[in-house]
Amino acid sequence: MTFDPATLHYTSDGLIPCIAQQDGTGEVLMMAWMNEAAVERTLATEKVTYWSRSRQAFWVKGETSGHTQQLVELRVDCDRDCLLAIVRQTGPACHTNRRSCFYTAIQDEAEVELMKPEP
Amino acid sequence: MTFDPATLHYTSDGLIPCIAQQDGTGEVLMMAWMNEAAVERTLATEKVTYWSRSRQAFWVKGETSGHTQQLVELRVDCDRDCLLAIVRQTGPACHTNRRSCFYTAIQDEAEVELMKPEP
Repeated sequence: MTFDPATLHYTSDGLIPCIAQQDGTGEVLMMAWMNEAAVERTLATEKVTYWSRSRQAFWVKGETSGHTQQLVELRVDCDRDCLLAIVRQTGPACHTNRRSCFYTAIQDEAEVELMKPEP
Repeated sequence: MTFDPATLHYTSDGLIPCIAQQDGTGEVLMMAWMNEAAVERTLATEKVTYWSRSRQAFWVKGETSGHTQQLVELRVDCDRDCLLAIVRQTGPACHTNRRSCFYTAIQDEAEVELMKPEP
């Protein structure tokens, strides 16, 4: 079946969440949002492209930082309302310069920092 | 720092997305939503508990199917608006009886089924 981005289920704002996972290691790097055009651009360019809700603009991941996400494979979930992008992440994925945005764990009711910013 | 679920950033509906990832293998199993009380219940019971938007009720994963998610660790992202639950999934995570909800890949513009329902 040919994939049509219009068949995904978007929020009332026209957005769908996309989880980025590092190819090979399986590390979950971040979650951000795409609109239909961002899904199309991601597939066409193989550079993961989100929709920035704050800037209301396309956000080609790493375009300014150099911390790009090369698309390996895009996957759709059973409800067609969430995406999983398997990527090759260059450098840190997080704007705090950490490899992953999920660097804070809750352990024994306390917040614990799992990783430091990269030098 | 003590973790307080009230410090997370919820949508206008009071919800926060939570990604479930299998401990050890790193497989991304599913994404669903929690509200503040579901976050508290998940941490208190170590059984991953979502908020069902369709039923408007707590959804203790696997409560009826037996396909439970034992919490290993809950993580918070840099923006505090997304959660990552590291879990031990019993059986399939997907309501289609597949291990993961992300069983459809987009390859060469076509949808490809990556895994079959478990017997």
